Amino acid sequence: MQTREVFVSAPGKVIFHGEHSVVHGKVALAVSVNLRTFLRLKSTSSAEVRINLPNIDTFLSWEITALQPLLANFKGGQCDPTELDTDLLKRLRTFTGISDDSTDTRSMAVLAFLYTYLTIFAESLASITLTVWSELPTGAGLGSSAAYNVCLSAALLSARESISSPLTPQLESASWSKEELELINRWAFMGEKIIHGNPSGVDNAVSTWGGFLRYHAGSITPLSWVPILRILLTNTKVPRSTKVLVSGVKDKINKFPTVMKPVLESVSAVSCTCEQTLTEMAAHGPSAEHFNILEELIDINQHHLNVMGVGHSSLDTLCRVTLARGLHSKLTGAGGGGCGITLLRPETDPSVIQSTVEELKTCGFDCWETSIGAPGVQQHASNGLSLDVLKILNSY
Amino acid sequence: MQTREVFVSAPGKVIFHGEHSVVHGKVALAVSVNLRTFLRLKSTSSAEVRINLPNIDTFLSWEITALQPLLANFKGGQCDPTELDTDLLKRLRTFTGISDDSTDTRSMAVLAFLYTYLTIFAESLASITLTVWSELPTGAGLGSSAAYNVCLSAALLSARESISSPLTPQLESASWSKEELELINRWAFMGEKIIHGNPSGVDNAVSTWGGFLRYHAGSITPLSWVPILRILLTNTKVPRSTKVLVSGVKDKINKFPTVMKPVLESVSAVSCTCEQTLTEMAAHGPSAEHFNILEELIDINQHHLNVMGVGHSSLDTLCRVTLARGLHSKLTGAGGGGCGITLLRPETDPSVIQSTVEELKTCGFDCWETSIGAPGVQQHASNGLSLDVLKILNSY
Repeated sequence: MQTREVFVSAPGKVIFHGEHSVVHGKVALAVSVNLRTFLRLKSTSSAEVRINLPNIDTFLSWEITALQPLLANFKGGQCDPTELDTDLLKRLRTFTGISDDSTDTRSMAVLAFLYTYLTIFAESLASITLTVWSELPTGAGLGSSAAYNVCLSAALLSARESISSPLTPQLESASWSKEELELINRWAFMGEKIIHGNPSGVDNAVSTWGGFLRYHAGSITPLSWVPILRILLTNTKVPRSTKVLVSGVKDKINKFPTVMKPVLESVSAVSCTCEQTLTEMAAHGPSAEHFNILEELIDINQHHLNVMGVGHSSLDTLCRVTLARGLHSKLTGAGGGGCGITLLRPETDPSVIQSTVEELKTCGFDCWETSIGAPGVQQHASNGLSLDVLKILNSY
Repeated sequence: MQTREVFVSAPGKVIFHGEHSVVHGKVALAVSVNLRTFLRLKSTSSAEVRINLPNIDTFLSWEITALQPLLANFKGGQCDPTELDTDLLKRLRTFTGISDDSTDTRSMAVLAFLYTYLTIFAESLASITLTVWSELPTGAGLGSSAAYNVCLSAALLSARESISSPLTPQLESASWSKEELELINRWAFMGEKIIHGNPSGVDNAVSTWGGFLRYHAGSITPLSWVPILRILLTNTKVPRSTKVLVSGVKDKINKFPTVMKPVLESVSAVSCTCEQTLTEMAAHGPSAEHFNILEELIDINQHHLNVMGVGHSSLDTLCRVTLARGLHSKLTGAGGGGCGITLLRPETDPSVIQSTVEELKTCGFDCWETSIGAPGVQQHASNGLSLDVLKILNSY
């Protein structure tokens, strides 16, 4: 291992259209959101591996010699991951004292890290320190765990020299080849399996590839060329259970099948019409009419999500506050609170954005001005990162 | 003509489900609303015919001898009306000085009255005075013109003895036989044609038969046995053009056919599911779960109407204010403002109703506590009317 230092970042994700109906076999559009997770990997000579997660006040280290025995029966090595090694995971749970029913953020982050580190470096455990810091809130349906796993995989694979270092001295940021991204994505998916049990793979795919992805009946297709769109991302901070919401929708479909099935059809058509519009925007340049269509589709889908019963008064407030300024919003993800997105138009005045953000904050919401469709996982030179981010990553 | 005095009343209508989608061949449910139009017909010896419409400050009379020439070429007489006599209508417009492009309430009311009077009494014009007073606001999509035409037809046909007088000394109110109601309905439809040009016939059918009617692809079917439901009827008083709203929905369907056509399907299913539920309520007695279903269907349809683009912030306010008290509302009719209905449950506390009505009034809305599914046109004994109504009808 030559690498002394690697910086990487990966974006979060939002569902642009198709949440819930995707569960019933319909088309969904997921997209990267440019709130990113940043990671610094540094080689050390301490004979230990260390991870610093300042967002969740977690600073842990393990001696390499203590970790080595965990790999006693391990047959993997630096191969292409396809299945989770559940024996190794079980040994890791025992080693860390994390029980089977622990699902808290810290426990999951530690397990995913140790598993990924051990399996990638199985042949020779390296002394390294990782610091991960994220702009993404956790548990808000924004794919924070996927961004974490993608960063871990990219940095560890890069340090292990399983993938190249795409940075050249002229570049501040760079991404990997298609094949290397596929490898990063597969490793990140293992981490997602550890954290979520049975994830769809959409979150890690979005965080890896960036841009828009079409998700339909288990197959994930990145959209080839689409615009980056400015949005407000609002977290109502109203807690909700995705499981309860998903099962509520299912119950409603069973109760009113003739009423609800056409609604799922319509949502699917919203996703497809949106995809078409994005493709046209990329091909011919975005026009005001394109934005009108995107806004209309946002409104339609928000009403459909209300029909499914996954709306919430906090999301109604978001829609009302933004619409009062001509901006269109919908929930993103599970609903019942959680997050919403508001499309900004190219001509939307900064003062309008500012006053909207302020009013949303007085409603008790978190609100970020950001963009969707941003690049996926990237390697950065230190001058490719903002000073604020660099300062955090370098403090540990 | 023996009759010295006839009192009749007829209800308004609301669309319970299916407004707009009915234009595109889907099922709609219309229902009588128990805000009524009342009519008193009195025989006189003045050799003139007089109509008093205190709601619109209209008090007019014509000498019989002046009206007689209008029937010079009239071949009809007291027959079953099938087609509008456009020659007679033209002569009436000349006689009254009401131009072809006049569509104001007063002009339309006068034309419909004179036409109905002349055609029913063609063989021998009677000296009578009619006073019509209505609880229904005009131009609010509540079928006020239909209630007016149904009252006119019922009273005039009754005075002309073309239909019986169903009242017996023991009864305060009574209705006519099926055949007589059909005759009243057909005459009222002529009046509707005069006022609206090309009406669907739903409004006069609801006002004649009362209860719920299923309307699908031009055919109108009264539902045989359904419950009377308590509602709040709210008039946001936001003016709107039905024509513009209908054409906006059409444009949206053309713009997003794959998105919008399933929405129309879903609305149609809402109407059918509602009809099923009402039938069950009548058959087995209403349960709390029946009311839950009716509420869910109201919410779903209101979202669908928003998808069609016929919502309005005033209607959002109505929904929010009522939902804050656990009550469910939807727009009724054209939308874009206009009227909304709020379902009341049997257990809804009077204090809740009162505070809701008060808050809606502070929003600038008119609001009535009334019921839907009430009887259609009726004849009344004078003691079958409230003193307030009687006082108004007897003041002229």
